[in-house]
Amino acid sequence: MSHKLLNSRDVEFQLYEVLNSAALTQRPRFAEHSKETFNAAIDTAKQIATDLYAPHNAKLDANEPQFDGKKVSMIPEVKTAFDALAQAGFIAGRQDYELEGMQLPEVIMAICMGYFTAANPSSSGYSFLTSAAANLINVFASEPLKEKFLSPMLKGRFSGTMALTEPHAGSSLADIRTTAKQTDKGHYLIKGDKMYISGGDHELTENIVHLVLAKIEGAPTGVKGISLFLVPKFTLDKNGNPEKRNDVALTGLIHKLGYRGTTSTALSFGDNGDCVGYLIGEPHQGLRYMFQMMNEARVGVAMGATVIGYRGYLYSLEYAGERLQGRHATDGPETSPIAIIEHADVRRMLLAQKSYVEGGLSLCLYGASLLDDINTLSSPAEVKETHTLLDLLTPVIKSWCSEFGPKANDLAIQVLGGSGYTREYPVEQYWRDNRLNPIHEGTNGIQALDLLGRKVWQHNSLGLQLLGKRIQTDIQQAKSSGDGRITEWADELGQALLSIQKITLQLGSDLAAKKVNETLANAACYMNIIGKTVVAWLWLRQAIAAESGLTRLSSTDNTNTEDNNFYQGKLQAAQYFYKWELPSIEQDIKLLTDRDDSCYGMKKEWF
Amino acid sequence: MSHKLLNSRDVEFQLYEVLNSAALTQRPRFAEHSKETFNAAIDTAKQIATDLYAPHNAKLDANEPQFDGKKVSMIPEVKTAFDALAQAGFIAGRQDYELEGMQLPEVIMAICMGYFTAANPSSSGYSFLTSAAANLINVFASEPLKEKFLSPMLKGRFSGTMALTEPHAGSSLADIRTTAKQTDKGHYLIKGDKMYISGGDHELTENIVHLVLAKIEGAPTGVKGISLFLVPKFTLDKNGNPEKRNDVALTGLIHKLGYRGTTSTALSFGDNGDCVGYLIGEPHQGLRYMFQMMNEARVGVAMGATVIGYRGYLYSLEYAGERLQGRHATDGPETSPIAIIEHADVRRMLLAQKSYVEGGLSLCLYGASLLDDINTLSSPAEVKETHTLLDLLTPVIKSWCSEFGPKANDLAIQVLGGSGYTREYPVEQYWRDNRLNPIHEGTNGIQALDLLGRKVWQHNSLGLQLLGKRIQTDIQQAKSSGDGRITEWADELGQALLSIQKITLQLGSDLAAKKVNETLANAACYMNIIGKTVVAWLWLRQAIAAESGLTRLSSTDNTNTEDNNFYQGKLQAAQYFYKWELPSIEQDIKLLTDRDDSCYGMKKEWF
Repeated sequence: MSHKLLNSRDVEFQLYEVLNSAALTQRPRFAEHSKETFNAAIDTAKQIATDLYAPHNAKLDANEPQFDGKKVSMIPEVKTAFDALAQAGFIAGRQDYELEGMQLPEVIMAICMGYFTAANPSSSGYSFLTSAAANLINVFASEPLKEKFLSPMLKGRFSGTMALTEPHAGSSLADIRTTAKQTDKGHYLIKGDKMYISGGDHELTENIVHLVLAKIEGAPTGVKGISLFLVPKFTLDKNGNPEKRNDVALTGLIHKLGYRGTTSTALSFGDNGDCVGYLIGEPHQGLRYMFQMMNEARVGVAMGATVIGYRGYLYSLEYAGERLQGRHATDGPETSPIAIIEHADVRRMLLAQKSYVEGGLSLCLYGASLLDDINTLSSPAEVKETHTLLDLLTPVIKSWCSEFGPKANDLAIQVLGGSGYTREYPVEQYWRDNRLNPIHEGTNGIQALDLLGRKVWQHNSLGLQLLGKRIQTDIQQAKSSGDGRITEWADELGQALLSIQKITLQLGSDLAAKKVNETLANAACYMNIIGKTVVAWLWLRQAIAAESGLTRLSSTDNTNTEDNNFYQGKLQAAQYFYKWELPSIEQDIKLLTDRDDSCYGMKKEWF
Repeated sequence: MSHKLLNSRDVEFQLYEVLNSAALTQRPRFAEHSKETFNAAIDTAKQIATDLYAPHNAKLDANEPQFDGKKVSMIPEVKTAFDALAQAGFIAGRQDYELEGMQLPEVIMAICMGYFTAANPSSSGYSFLTSAAANLINVFASEPLKEKFLSPMLKGRFSGTMALTEPHAGSSLADIRTTAKQTDKGHYLIKGDKMYISGGDHELTENIVHLVLAKIEGAPTGVKGISLFLVPKFTLDKNGNPEKRNDVALTGLIHKLGYRGTTSTALSFGDNGDCVGYLIGEPHQGLRYMFQMMNEARVGVAMGATVIGYRGYLYSLEYAGERLQGRHATDGPETSPIAIIEHADVRRMLLAQKSYVEGGLSLCLYGASLLDDINTLSSPAEVKETHTLLDLLTPVIKSWCSEFGPKANDLAIQVLGGSGYTREYPVEQYWRDNRLNPIHEGTNGIQALDLLGRKVWQHNSLGLQLLGKRIQTDIQQAKSSGDGRITEWADELGQALLSIQKITLQLGSDLAAKKVNETLANAACYMNIIGKTVVAWLWLRQAIAAESGLTRLSSTDNTNTEDNNFYQGKLQAAQYFYKWELPSIEQDIKLLTDRDDSCYGMKKEWF
């Protein structure tokens, strides 16, 4: 089997036929780029992913990093791959040329990083964390700090982490206890315990740069008292080289269900009272800074969940085309067995996967394109609007993709049947790896609360209005397409949009009437509705692009069968999504409309 | 944490308040039993499960059986537990007194075996297989074969397997290639390769008795040519003791995602042309015999899926009551963190789990009670009817429970959050173990085809009529309960039943019109509708019993708060199921009504 990572034809379609990413080259920031340079970057990523990441995906899973009490060791392939990725410029891929970055758009970087994750999520985790931490330092840290730490991180000499969670405080950052005490030497002394810190220790890089949330003595209670610190594993000498071991100790490695190659660590800061930390930005602004990183990380998690799902889909698709088993109900036992893809129920499972992972990819790339707009649009008003829209969509992207990526992996196992349940086939690992995504960077429960409790109402619900407007634009275009199916889907999407508007008004008035806890209790239903509607919209956009593709093929007498098949497949997957997935929102709408209290009314002593 | 296996109060409720299993003691077969002896058996099972099975569940997962080329070794706890279970009489639990059995009803045995599976699914697998194989031998094998093999199996000296699958033939048994050649010594010579044979080799017992499907030379093509053979690992001497190694070789162990303690083997029969097999029953009747075992095994799989889900539910419930995190949206950061069970979204995840596992348990026990009726009702007409009903329900029981048990385990991980993703907590293993259940004993896709392609139409759809009649009886009772909620649910269930009748007529006419493949293509939708409706019915039955319980409490001035809470919880879980789960059938009904062809119409080249 070929073990394809992603479908390149789909990548091209999403970037250049659905999103028109080639037009980004007309913006000043990307003026030196062309579709060719974008594709060259993608090809390089794909090559490194295929040659250096994919081959040790299963090996790393079976041989997870070990801690002997002094050092963390892992199979050498991880460092080789990390170095190659860094050397090819991908840690700095999005950064300015003057930082020796490639100044690539987020949509292109999303695909590049997508290839690495598809190939080996846990091995590529180290570079992701480093890239995200470097970006945060670049935006918020002082010049002296940037001078010391930024360049070695972007080059992959130093790596980065996000140290937020504490043993007693995961989802609730308001309760962190790590403290920071100012010294007269310009730095702070950090003290506290962190947990589940990915990449928190290893020997891949000369140094590790922890971005640590802590409270300065006397800070306000809750999240308003959180500051952000840069805490290196080694403090630096005058030349910027690691000099002295800082007072950060690895207490232990945490052993996970999947993602086993990314060390998950318990770290102890300041056990000997000498943990040096540097304040990033202003005191008490730490959560705001971290949220910039976290929001990007949330879209990154969504992309990871999608591409792990995508790889499982492609594997099960190929398996289904090769594995012979059974016959149609109408054929007798004397006929030859058929490939299982001929069985409609197997096609159902493949089509569901296709609709999840290609829909998810469309959604993640849409999110990345909004980031590009925020970074490069010239009108401040447009930038502000786009920001609001992305703020609204971020929990939706994170949550939908991390729910449906794993669902795809589950179906991939089912397509393989008994084989899928064995470790001789790769799909079980994909499924285990992907199970992390609905949990980290804010559980999906937290995302739903973020959406219904905050994001929907920001700026007088401007985000939702903007979303509605953009969806309406595509609905109008769909209706002018002349294709009966697409018109029908546009109508259904319009209906869903109306339902959202109606139910949002009701929820808003309930919140205004101070029924806060009752209303937020069913946040998951609201998330389902928005998530499915948004993905249905992205399937409509894909259908419109596929329809254009078909028209183009027929008008030019192009008989490219592969392209024709590809577009037909897109239309069929869109149909599947509209018929089999979108209608489930009806039930959630009814629960919200009826103010269902099944969960809210359940008393703990009744369990 | 207490690591409870099942909720004993719920077990009691299901057996004696929903099912009235105590009344079984009025039947001649169970005349020597009483509610006390039933409960004594259950208590013994629970004790052995707790003391000998549960403690090595994680250890066996982390130390799976090893094959050194000669023998299979595993941690010694497995044998200790197996022997204790056998010695306590559970392998023979259902068998006649004259076979030294306990003559226990199936419902009671289901609970006993449920405790073992909840405690350690893979370690208890060996006794399950042995019990099922012994039962098949008891029913179909000749007296001489029974004399030799039955008693040592029931005592746990010999163990049993089902050897059906071959490398190229899993779901499609019609294509098996293993052959059997008659000799003049009364036995056959077996030759062929089998795969995924659970318990296919180990050193737990003196001998292993394989029940092997093979084709006698010259047999008809397809499933009509399959015969069943008893193939021992060791042939026996005159005293019935293992004497000579038979020509059955372990080719290798298969390494699984979960259920790691039950060896999954590739076996080679007759490599040296000397594999002795004994025909069971008549030639070419093998599949029919095996289906008796498989049908029971399917209900067993459902029970396993349910209790693994159940244990995860109880663990996450306890965790949620202890873990402090966050606050209500209306409380400030100066307030103390609350237990996560206080968060409505966590309650949603717990309530969903409760509705799945307690609904599943109700369904499995209902299935087991039908088996008891088949075995012990005196009227042949009633027996035949019950048989037809159980035939119809078997794929539904297997498929619903093995879909929703794992769903519960997924939610248990989510309740634990980051902890749930680590191997330091047990819920990830439950989730891995349970992933097998939608695959083995016929994938859920196969179950749906069995339901819509065969079971619904048998005996002029008598099974569906009987099901409808029984549901109607409970609907009538519910309507007379006087409780508004229960009456409403009864109405909703009645609606679902009407929809089933309507859609079944349409499907029947489509099949009659020879649109076989098109119609079976959406078998999964039909399965969803029947499954959810049947479980909704069992939730109605539980609600009625809970309502009676509450009435009883209030009429006797009994202020047993625990019982009151228990019944209120049942009603709330029933409400959850009716409001959050049952309505999803609308979408499936629409797909079937519209004869949706999204999956059937998808061409393989479009993927």
